Amino acid sequence: MSGCPPQRRRQLEKLIARLGLSTTAQIRWDLLDQALTHSSAAADANYEQLEFAGDSVVRLLVAVLLWDNHAQGTVGEWSAIRSVLVSDRNLATLAAQYGLDRFLLLGPSASKDTQGQESRLADAFEALLGALYLSTSDLSLIQPWLTPHLQIQAAQVKTDPAYQNYKAALQQWTQATYQQLPDYRVQENFSQSRPNQNERFTAEVWLQGQLLGTGKGRSIKAAEKAAAYTAYLQLQSLTIDPQSTVD
Amino acid sequence: MSGCPPQRRRQLEKLIARLGLSTTAQIRWDLLDQALTHSSAAADANYEQLEFAGDSVVRLLVAVLLWDNHAQGTVGEWSAIRSVLVSDRNLATLAAQYGLDRFLLLGPSASKDTQGQESRLADAFEALLGALYLSTSDLSLIQPWLTPHLQIQAAQVKTDPAYQNYKAALQQWTQATYQQLPDYRVQENFSQSRPNQNERFTAEVWLQGQLLGTGKGRSIKAAEKAAAYTAYLQLQSLTIDPQSTVD
Repeated sequence: MSGCPPQRRRQLEKLIARLGLSTTAQIRWDLLDQALTHSSAAADANYEQLEFAGDSVVRLLVAVLLWDNHAQGTVGEWSAIRSVLVSDRNLATLAAQYGLDRFLLLGPSASKDTQGQESRLADAFEALLGALYLSTSDLSLIQPWLTPHLQIQAAQVKTDPAYQNYKAALQQWTQATYQQLPDYRVQENFSQSRPNQNERFTAEVWLQGQLLGTGKGRSIKAAEKAAAYTAYLQLQSLTIDPQSTVD
Repeated sequence: MSGCPPQRRRQLEKLIARLGLSTTAQIRWDLLDQALTHSSAAADANYEQLEFAGDSVVRLLVAVLLWDNHAQGTVGEWSAIRSVLVSDRNLATLAAQYGLDRFLLLGPSASKDTQGQESRLADAFEALLGALYLSTSDLSLIQPWLTPHLQIQAAQVKTDPAYQNYKAALQQWTQATYQQLPDYRVQENFSQSRPNQNERFTAEVWLQGQLLGTGKGRSIKAAEKAAAYTAYLQLQSLTIDPQSTVD
């Protein structure tokens, strides 16, 4: 509870300044330290629990943003936008923009695992949000710097032509790239385990034995559309946007 | 924005008093009205968007509660506890305890659909949380009355013997009730659509063509365990706890 070592504290102050926050803000430095510590560097005080909290923080932040700025959208559209914004890929890209990798403590095993870097960055980013939320019990340390990014991204998703016709866009892509059509698998959720009517159906879209994306909806069509859109955007960012990969 | 009709306002004040909150608190009465309006009663100003927000509010509330009170738990245990606490069944039960059905505006079509009542109550309950969150931009109108319920439930989940050995408990139950073993289907999530390492695998547990529950985990075993536990608790509450059904 007493904070973190002076050298680490000075390092973390640099990060806070990068976020545009004041280092005299009400920040739990001990939690910030923990948020930027991977399990390979500390078996106990690592980012896992903060990431669990941060996951719901970013979902709430996106919901508030959609409520404030996209009131005309349906919840189906909101779900599609949120799935892009809270994806590992997007969070890792945001983390990389703030140079989070330079603050993340890793043990020797993880340092060698370059493949795992994207998910580690995304996880640490969520943990950072968890630590900032728990510092003040509200979004006041998060909204000022993160909401502008997410607002731009939400607007981009909405103007993306693929957003209007997800399934056709995905099909075109898989045909062009793999000469194959994607395969949809839909199931109706058993009522007691179903979160709500908007999640009545779950669709998965598969290609060559790999799950490309999942989506939920109140109809089979809506669920397939959501799955296709998630898959499409992720494949696109993999293929045509090498800058979004984090090295 | 200007609030809601005086008669409805008086009705909603009763609900706020039931929650133990002051009617002079900073409450967005127009949002509260909307949260308790089903789509069959109003095509536009109904609870759907507030439910979308409320879903992340309750997840955050549970995460904060686990952080504050169950710091020794692993994130796998936290996930299992959260899936029970945020389930439709649990939220509908809480809604019923506060008599939410008496405040929920329904159109004629929904009034006849008694089967849909549980999910409507759960949805409206989430929407209520969304409206209260958006009233103050924090959890201050929610934590005082909801956290005590969730704390008791989290403790119950932890002391449930089934929580220690989920798969065996589920198997025993399906054998006794249907003379069949449950069927597990596990898939590894494609890295780009994977939220994080703790969700590397997704398991589904099926019985007689019905999906009983899903779970995620960083190993196949952990994912199956999480799925089994969700399924087990939901089946138990269906069978042995008739009071939890909402009529």
